[in-house]
Amino acid sequence: MIEATSPQPIDYTLYLVTDRDLMSSATIEESVDLAIQGGCTVVQLREKTADSREFFEMARRVREVTRSAGVPLIINDRVDIALAIDADGVHVGQRDLPATEVRRLIGIDKLLGVSVNDLDQALAAERDGADYIGVGAMFATDTKTEADTSSFEELTAIRSAVEVPIVVIGGINAHTIPLFKNTGIDGIAVVSAIVAQQDPAAAARHLKALFAKEVAH
Amino acid sequence: MIEATSPQPIDYTLYLVTDRDLMSSATIEESVDLAIQGGCTVVQLREKTADSREFFEMARRVREVTRSAGVPLIINDRVDIALAIDADGVHVGQRDLPATEVRRLIGIDKLLGVSVNDLDQALAAERDGADYIGVGAMFATDTKTEADTSSFEELTAIRSAVEVPIVVIGGINAHTIPLFKNTGIDGIAVVSAIVAQQDPAAAARHLKALFAKEVAH
Repeated sequence: MIEATSPQPIDYTLYLVTDRDLMSSATIEESVDLAIQGGCTVVQLREKTADSREFFEMARRVREVTRSAGVPLIINDRVDIALAIDADGVHVGQRDLPATEVRRLIGIDKLLGVSVNDLDQALAAERDGADYIGVGAMFATDTKTEADTSSFEELTAIRSAVEVPIVVIGGINAHTIPLFKNTGIDGIAVVSAIVAQQDPAAAARHLKALFAKEVAH
Repeated sequence: MIEATSPQPIDYTLYLVTDRDLMSSATIEESVDLAIQGGCTVVQLREKTADSREFFEMARRVREVTRSAGVPLIINDRVDIALAIDADGVHVGQRDLPATEVRRLIGIDKLLGVSVNDLDQALAAERDGADYIGVGAMFATDTKTEADTSSFEELTAIRSAVEVPIVVIGGINAHTIPLFKNTGIDGIAVVSAIVAQQDPAAAARHLKALFAKEVAH
């Protein structure tokens, strides 16, 4: 029997999404390294403004950091770069390549994450082979200006309807984490609440503890 | 013996590069269709401003046009989109994925083109598995504002040093084509001199005839 999901269960608790323009560290690999020291369990490299060569070189450097820490590295959008650097997975939004195409390109061993906004998209993502979904933006943010927000009602409906792990994204920080109590989510995806902080490791540690105390089921 | 190049010899004579922002036609597939009617022998889809989904869908539509015409379709930069739509090849510039990585991802059956600016880049491209190279920009243009220009001396040096077919790009039009007499180039890559014209088919026909008369060896 062929398993469509990764054999090792992934810990989605504290899912870091990078953004060079927001980070407090000098380099992206330093930012990722600090976040992992603080307890980040998954790293998604998301760099919408880099050219392909820059993205590739950045991804290769971050790959070294995540690999030595044993943390999965997921590449946003660019399946080719994920394949070139042998990342652990790809994350796509609704304006990226369709999930079915991505699954065909990456095979069954790499993780596939899909951003969804509502129940229909969540069901489609699961059907199309997503290993996990990102629901949001839960709150309007500077990093997701154009994203529609997802309500807690939609999140609840999605949680009831799909089996795959769910991470929430968009405006997740120490103030909003407690709101996810009893929502059944598997993790929180965070950008600025980690990378933009003066001490990303401490920020990650604090968010992870808060999630464990207030939300984890 | 494994051949690194496509078994069918490619006719690089009139190599179309698309640009949605410049085209006179309503859709990119119409623009490509007219250019092929006028004699374009290769089509490169180059869309730097489209999101991945849009690029993918555009590529799929153009794929139908090129396939029914028997003209190779080459995707600029995005190896993943080339693989997803089963294009005939990928073209990369110096700021895209390295040629060796692209070759590894696309295998030996798809075409690999590389943009080069000088002799060193041309030699590297050939060594790294390019099936052809694009030399330029030969003249400063609106579509390649940041590109350094390549001189005719550099083009001559490149022609003497590499075996792979050479197409020139950047400011190629009816006025500049005769300047390539005796340079030994295999084809001309054209953007606005075809897609921006009121009658792209007539424009392509005219350029092709001019190339045959003035340049082809």
